[in-house]
Order: sequence, then structure tokens, then C-alpha cells
Amino acid sequence: MPHANSLDKTLRERAAAVIPNGMYGHESVRLLPDVYPQFFGRAEGARLWDVDGREYLDFMCGYGPNLFGYRNHKIDMAAKAQAELGDAMTGPGAVMVELAEKFVQTIGHASWVMFCKNGTDATTMAISTARAHTDKRKILVAKGAYHGAAPWCTPVPAGVVPEDRAHLITYIYNDIESLEAAVIAAGDDLAGIVASPFKHDAFVDQQMPDAAYARRAREICDARGALLIVDDVRAGFRLARDCSWSLVGVAPDLSCWGKAIANGYPLSALAGSEKARAAAGTLYVTGSFWFGAVPMAAGVATLNEITSSTYLEHTERLATRFRNGLAEASRRHSFGLRQTGPAQMPLILFEDDPDYRIGYGWAAEMVQRGIYVHPWHSMFFCSAMTDADIDQALGVADQAFAALHKGRARLEPHSGLLAMLEARH
Amino acid sequence: MPHANSLDKTLRERAAAVIPNGMYGHESVRLLPDVYPQFFGRAEGARLWDVDGREYLDFMCGYGPNLFGYRNHKIDMAAKAQAELGDAMTGPGAVMVELAEKFVQTIGHASWVMFCKNGTDATTMAISTARAHTDKRKILVAKGAYHGAAPWCTPVPAGVVPEDRAHLITYIYNDIESLEAAVIAAGDDLAGIVASPFKHDAFVDQQMPDAAYARRAREICDARGALLIVDDVRAGFRLARDCSWSLVGVAPDLSCWGKAIANGYPLSALAGSEKARAAAGTLYVTGSFWFGAVPMAAGVATLNEITSSTYLEHTERLATRFRNGLAEASRRHSFGLRQTGPAQMPLILFEDDPDYRIGYGWAAEMVQRGIYVHPWHSMFFCSAMTDADIDQALGVADQAFAALHKGRARLEPHSGLLAMLEARH
Repeated sequence: MPHANSLDKTLRERAAAVIPNGMYGHESVRLLPDVYPQFFGRAEGARLWDVDGREYLDFMCGYGPNLFGYRNHKIDMAAKAQAELGDAMTGPGAVMVELAEKFVQTIGHASWVMFCKNGTDATTMAISTARAHTDKRKILVAKGAYHGAAPWCTPVPAGVVPEDRAHLITYIYNDIESLEAAVIAAGDDLAGIVASPFKHDAFVDQQMPDAAYARRAREICDARGALLIVDDVRAGFRLARDCSWSLVGVAPDLSCWGKAIANGYPLSALAGSEKARAAAGTLYVTGSFWFGAVPMAAGVATLNEITSSTYLEHTERLATRFRNGLAEASRRHSFGLRQTGPAQMPLILFEDDPDYRIGYGWAAEMVQRGIYVHPWHSMFFCSAMTDADIDQALGVADQAFAALHKGRARLEPHSGLLAMLEARH
Repeated sequence: MPHANSLDKTLRERAAAVIPNGMYGHESVRLLPDVYPQFFGRAEGARLWDVDGREYLDFMCGYGPNLFGYRNHKIDMAAKAQAELGDAMTGPGAVMVELAEKFVQTIGHASWVMFCKNGTDATTMAISTARAHTDKRKILVAKGAYHGAAPWCTPVPAGVVPEDRAHLITYIYNDIESLEAAVIAAGDDLAGIVASPFKHDAFVDQQMPDAAYARRAREICDARGALLIVDDVRAGFRLARDCSWSLVGVAPDLSCWGKAIANGYPLSALAGSEKARAAAGTLYVTGSFWFGAVPMAAGVATLNEITSSTYLEHTERLATRFRNGLAEASRRHSFGLRQTGPAQMPLILFEDDPDYRIGYGWAAEMVQRGIYVHPWHSMFFCSAMTDADIDQALGVADQAFAALHKGRARLEPHSGLLAMLEARH
């Protein structure tokens, strides 16, 4: 950390006493360069301020929830108006029906929806629905894909027993042969196929879905009576005003949603086609706050923005500018950049960087100059970003590449990352 | 439903089109008398108004979250002040550390805490922590106890595979012999024992914990190196300003929290003793909204109320008045009432009522007169209730018993409930 007497440092020390390892989960900075702040003081639009007052243009958007800008006025007003009435009451508010109708209208394949709190709730409910629908057990998931942090799917299986994953079979994303082999391995016990909308695993290049692979997954499910599940929790509404696989012309039976659907208010969802309705209706799924009306009001306002604004074209245009500008700047400074996935959800890795030291070095130079990027996770654009923001980010990127070039010989791998990577292999 | 043209009816019809069965989870009224409203328009203090404007004194408190009154001014102000700064950002706010410190100070056995969104998140993390700590697999749970709605614990196991529960062993709550038999069944593979703070299963009399049983569970865990887990999600802070088992002098290794800890803002938690810290730190557990600062600010304000107000004595006193008054009124009208569990979390059943028709009849008479009670689930008091509220509720109860007495011969069992009970047996 740059400032020994920073409030961030003090908070980390206090946190270490009362939180295991001082922080947990995806917002722990344990696997990020040391200059990254752990705690934030405030956020507005596309910007964040850490607890020591340093400002950042935020290309993580809360790891996805921020789609229309932090503290978006319209969405916050809708949430506040509902808060004046009630939130977690003894039954849902009328807004739940309004939101469900709007959701089903927006998602092409959906005829029903159930709301929950975590993305993991939605993915877990999806596999239970597939099992209830088929009365079969095997679930196919792509190797390395993230579908949440419950025992059946967490990427770090501490405290997990083998039975939690007894009926999971893995296949390689975008690889039809591998998918078909997994289907054969499932025998007559195939309940469902889970797919990310695109391959957005951490630490490796992202891949857009191959349309032939997506269609094959659909065909297999139709032939076998299994359910096709698209886990759109991370990418939902950043690629399309519909399920992300609408872009390859494939409609799933179930889609999982979260992150951006209420612009940061805690809300996730499982949406399904008519075929899956009866099975979904047999599940007992619930949570203490699942019927809270405030996040649902924010969800309605968010869907209104999604369907009525040009947010998608705007973020795609800015993201493409950023991608092209970065490619140019990196070439100028003789770095080979691998920018993968959709421009508005980019992953940025470096060529010839097996232990990620170059990527970490660049990210550290960026964040120290007020541009919050991530060295190994998909990043996120939001509609509050402007051309001036992209100008600033590209200007800083130029400086960051220059500084990186100069200090390249002194770069070292991140010790925590190395330990984690070794534990994985 | 009493009003054919009610907004509630219209909303139910709309909901049936876009939500499986029209509603799911614990806030569905499918298993309640037909006169219960499904949708609510607003809430304030201890009162609710349904979407058709009918007012209720609410003895469910949102199924627990409402501890200090709906829209509690102090707590809402704290949440709003944080909302002006930021909620779900790219990292947590300083308030997370403040909340963790306060939580650990408040809970006697705890030296660390991790925050999450659902009670189920906390109970699932608890069993994973026990397994990680012991490197063993077996988890003992009381037969019929509710610990959430994930595949390993949901009470309606549709879509669940046997492997989800492969290492669960059940015992009978408060029964030392049964607990010891379960321990023997676990062999040398015991990871943890899960206990509710008191037996609060639906449909059956509640039971306070027998201190000898609680102590025996503690002894067994100590002797075997297993972890003792108290699932305080439902009861937390309604019985004590500490883990509920502090009342029987037994400190668990892990306690699960949710519902009331932020007075309705979506927040749950797993708290642990020093012994369990390292194991908890090995888990990868997270969720998109787990670092949201607004519910944490509400949590700090709620803990302030818990530690500085007389809410506990106030609700206990009112609840005891209600219990005594109901007992008297029921005797006056020749009904045998079974009021079990802590007075401030009562379950009210009737003698000689095997198919619950009397209880349903009474609940229907109460709710039609503006007192929202529940015929088979623990109920909840909140600190916003007053003596005048109890006067009103007891006055209505007298009328309800009288009406019930008069119409007793015409009572019929609830068809949905009957079907559910038959499916269970």
C-alpha cells in the first residue's frame, strides 16, 4: 500500500481481527496488486472514491451490479418511493407482480420468473428445476466456469464433500465433441446443460460462444428432454436487452440473473420457459429477504432504463473505443495485449506473461493513476461512462504502459497469486 | 377471499401468469386460510396494510426481520446516510469493519464474523466450516428442523438428489439419547452438530432447549473435535442480546444469523469462535451483494438499538400479557390453546385439532378483524408494539373465539394443507 498511515491500512488491520483473513470472497483484494484499496468511501456514476479520498474511474462497476451508474437518480428515486411504503413485509408488494411481468416481457424465452438474492440462488434453483423436470440427476457444466459459491459450484472446494458434485459432468466450453462426450457419460440420466453466455472464466482469455456449440446444446436438450440453462448472472443485460444467447439465436429453458438487474440493489432471478414452469413450481425455495419490495422497485426502474434507453449502444461504442485505443497504446509501447470477450465486459491479459507479473504491473500503474482495472477478471462498463472518461482512461493507459516498459525488468510475480495458482495445479 | 373485486385478487391472477403457482416460498399464502391477503401496500411500526387498504396489527413481522418496527426512523436514517455515499461498490465500505466489530462485541462466543444475504448462506457456510475444520463429513441435524431452502436442507426435496444429504444424520431435539445414537452413527467422521436455539418447527408445539441436552451437545463436540452450530437465523436477538443459547449457558463454535439483524435490510451472518477462524478462512464464499454497505449501516444501527434500548424487556412483557390474555380468553370460550416457545416468538395451536381446522378457523377470524396471526408458524413480536396494541389484539381474540365457537360445527380443513400433510406422511 502506498500510504503507511492510510485509513485503508487501519481498516485492514481492524478487519483482520474480526473477519477471517481480513476479508473474504470476490471483493477481497488479497489477489490484487498491493496498491489496490480494500475499502471505499463513496461512489457516483462511473466513479469511486476510496476511504482515503482517492478517486477512480471504475471499470469493475461493483463486479457487475452498476449498469446505469452508481446512485442512478431515476432508479434510486423508485427505490426510495417504495421504501416510504415498505420493504421486507409479511408478504410481497404489488411491485413483485409488476417486476415479474416486465421481466417476462423483456426475456424472450421466459414465461415465468422467481426472484432471489444471490446469483448462486438462481443457479442452484436452475439445477434443481432441471432435476425436478426430468427426474434425472446429471448436470453438465463447462470446466472452469463460475456458477457461484455454494458447495456444488464454489471454485475453492474447502469444506466441500465429493457428494456435493457427484452428478456434475464437465465439458469444454465451445467444444461440441467434448459436450457430446459428456452427454454420453450422462447416459440416460441427463437433467440439464449449464452454459455461461460466453466463457468468462478468470485468468484465461474469454471466448464468445460459438453458435454451432450453442445450437448443439439446444438440440441435445431437446432430444433428451433435458433443460438448457444459461447462467447470465454476470453478463445479463450488458450484451443484449434479452438473454445473452439471443445473440446466437438460441433460447434456453432457464436463465439465471443477478448483478445488474436492479442496478446494485440486491436482487437475482431465475427465469424459465413454459415447459419448465411445473417443475419450478414443485421446488421449495425461499429466503428471508426474497420478497423485499425495495430491490424489486429498483428492478422495475432498471428494466425501464434497459428497454427505453440507448445504454447498450452507448456502452458498446465507448467500450470499442477503449479496446481500440488500448490496442494502439500497447503496440506503441511494445506490449502484446490480449483483449477478449465482449468489449463492454473485457478481460485484458498480456502476451508472454505466464505468472501475470506484467498484467499486475500494468493494473497497478493504472489504479495508482485513478483508473480501476482488474488484472484477471472480466471488467464492466456502465452507461454513466462518457467519452471524456475514455479519453482520460486512454491517456492514463499510455502513461501506465510507459511506466511499465521502464520498470519491466524489476517486475515480480504477486506472491499470493503464485500460491493460489500453485494450489490449483 | 372476501372481496371478489379486490386488488389482491387481480394481483394474484396476474402473478399466476408470470410466477410458478402465483407465488413461492414462505410468503406464499397457499397454505393459509383463504381470507389472508397475498400482497401488501405498506407497513409502519407494528402495522401492515394490504393492497386493498385493510390494516393489520402484524404478529409475523415479515417472518422475523421486523424487530424495531417497520420503517424504524433511526435505522432507516442510518441506511439512507450510507445510501448517499454508496451501496454495492467495487469493495466494501468502512461500515463493514464497524459492523463486524460491533457484532463480535455483542455475541459472546464470537471472535469473527462473515456477512452474507440469506439465512441459508449462513447455515451452509457453517457446515462447510465444520467440515473444513475437522476434515470430517457427518453433520447432525434435528429431525424436522428448518435450516434453510438449499438442496441440503429444504423441507420439500423436489429437485434434490440423495447425495445432497448423504452425510446428514438426524436426531431428536432435546433428546440426549437420540443425539448420542446419532454421534455413534457418525463414527469417527463427525464434523458438527447443528441445533436450533429452541425447537421451532412448523405445525408442532415449540420446545425450549433443555439445558442438559445443550450441554451434552457441547461436551460431545469438545470430546470429538467437532463444531457446535446454533442456527439463530430465526430467533436471533429476540430472546437475548447474544446468541440464544447464552440463556442455557452454552457457547457454540458457530452461530448463524439473519432476519432481524438489520431490521429488514437484507443481511445475514456467520459468527464464529477463535477455534473456527482458520477453517472459515479457507472457504471461498461470496455473493454479488454481500459487500453492500447500506444493509450493513442498518445493521450497525440495529445493533445499537439492541445494546442500548429495553426492546427485549418490552417485547417480553407485552408478549407475556398477550399469552396470558389469550389463555384466559380461550378458556372463557372453552378452547384448549397450546401456546409454546418463548412468549415473544409464540406458536399457537389448539387441542384436539389434528387437521388444524380449529386453528385455521381462529386465525381467519383474527385476520378478518385486523390481527395478523399465523396458524402453524412461529410468530414474532417487535418493539414497536404497545400495550394498546395488545389490548386491541386481546379484544379481537375474544370476538374471534366467540365466532369460532359459534361456527365450530361448520369448520372444514384447508384443502391445500391437507394435501401437503398427506404428501409428507
